[in-house]
Amino acid sequence: MYIPKLYLDDLKVGDEFRSREFQLTETAIHDFAAEFDPQPFHLDAEAARSSIFNGLAASGWHTAAISMRLIVESVPLASGVIGVDVQITWPRPTRPGDVLHVVSRVAGISPSKSKPDRGIVTMQSDTLNQSGEVCQKLSSKLVVFRKEPTA
Amino acid sequence: MYIPKLYLDDLKVGDEFRSREFQLTETAIHDFAAEFDPQPFHLDAEAARSSIFNGLAASGWHTAAISMRLIVESVPLASGVIGVDVQITWPRPTRPGDVLHVVSRVAGISPSKSKPDRGIVTMQSDTLNQSGEVCQKLSSKLVVFRKEPTA
Repeated sequence: MYIPKLYLDDLKVGDEFRSREFQLTETAIHDFAAEFDPQPFHLDAEAARSSIFNGLAASGWHTAAISMRLIVESVPLASGVIGVDVQITWPRPTRPGDVLHVVSRVAGISPSKSKPDRGIVTMQSDTLNQSGEVCQKLSSKLVVFRKEPTA
Repeated sequence: MYIPKLYLDDLKVGDEFRSREFQLTETAIHDFAAEFDPQPFHLDAEAARSSIFNGLAASGWHTAAISMRLIVESVPLASGVIGVDVQITWPRPTRPGDVLHVVSRVAGISPSKSKPDRGIVTMQSDTLNQSGEVCQKLSSKLVVFRKEPTA
């Protein structure tokens, strides 16, 4: 499938992009947590059972990093996916065996007043599990370039 | 050094926690990006020179993950560092060789109305490089438990 590379001028509010699916494993949860978020509820299934998560849960930062991978693959911006400002909530944890995908939607487009070659695109990206439950809501302000600077 | 484990009742607005230092390497930048944010400006120094970053830059998600590691180590919450909602900005990129540390400050404390055993703490965590420049500003809403539930 040919995916065109998109510039600011190609985007409109409501445009939607769906990623491929990605399966989260217990090993990956453990390895990410050991490096970046070494807390018992991300490392050890037994300790996690009596935690607020009621069982082993991936670090939210792991869910965020996987989501970024899926967004980079599925949102074909010509100049790349470059965030300057993000907001994240994690309504529910991601778990070993979960199959995740991300649906991204253009929520706003603001051409830059000072820099005619670019604008800021607000993108809402939901990370869902195999049951269609939202595990992460990400709102990103992205720098997106024009194909040709406006006069 | 003995670091006491802190509960909601132990925290007050203005409390500050400083992490150890962490050196970012070009290999680590490449490996994280290859797994989670495979874009040329995070993977290849030559391609990065002509990008918006003017040289190789770590993924913002890598800076975020390293910051979480440093926060988990330096903010000694008895029940763990459990974020429900975060906001991040990246005022400047992190680079190969940068030595990072995080300064976290309690900015707000809201006891839960419905759950007497916990509250929400707003924590501002700045990630600084070796020149004292802020590379990431993170505002997190954390669930923090009380030692004893209030009556």
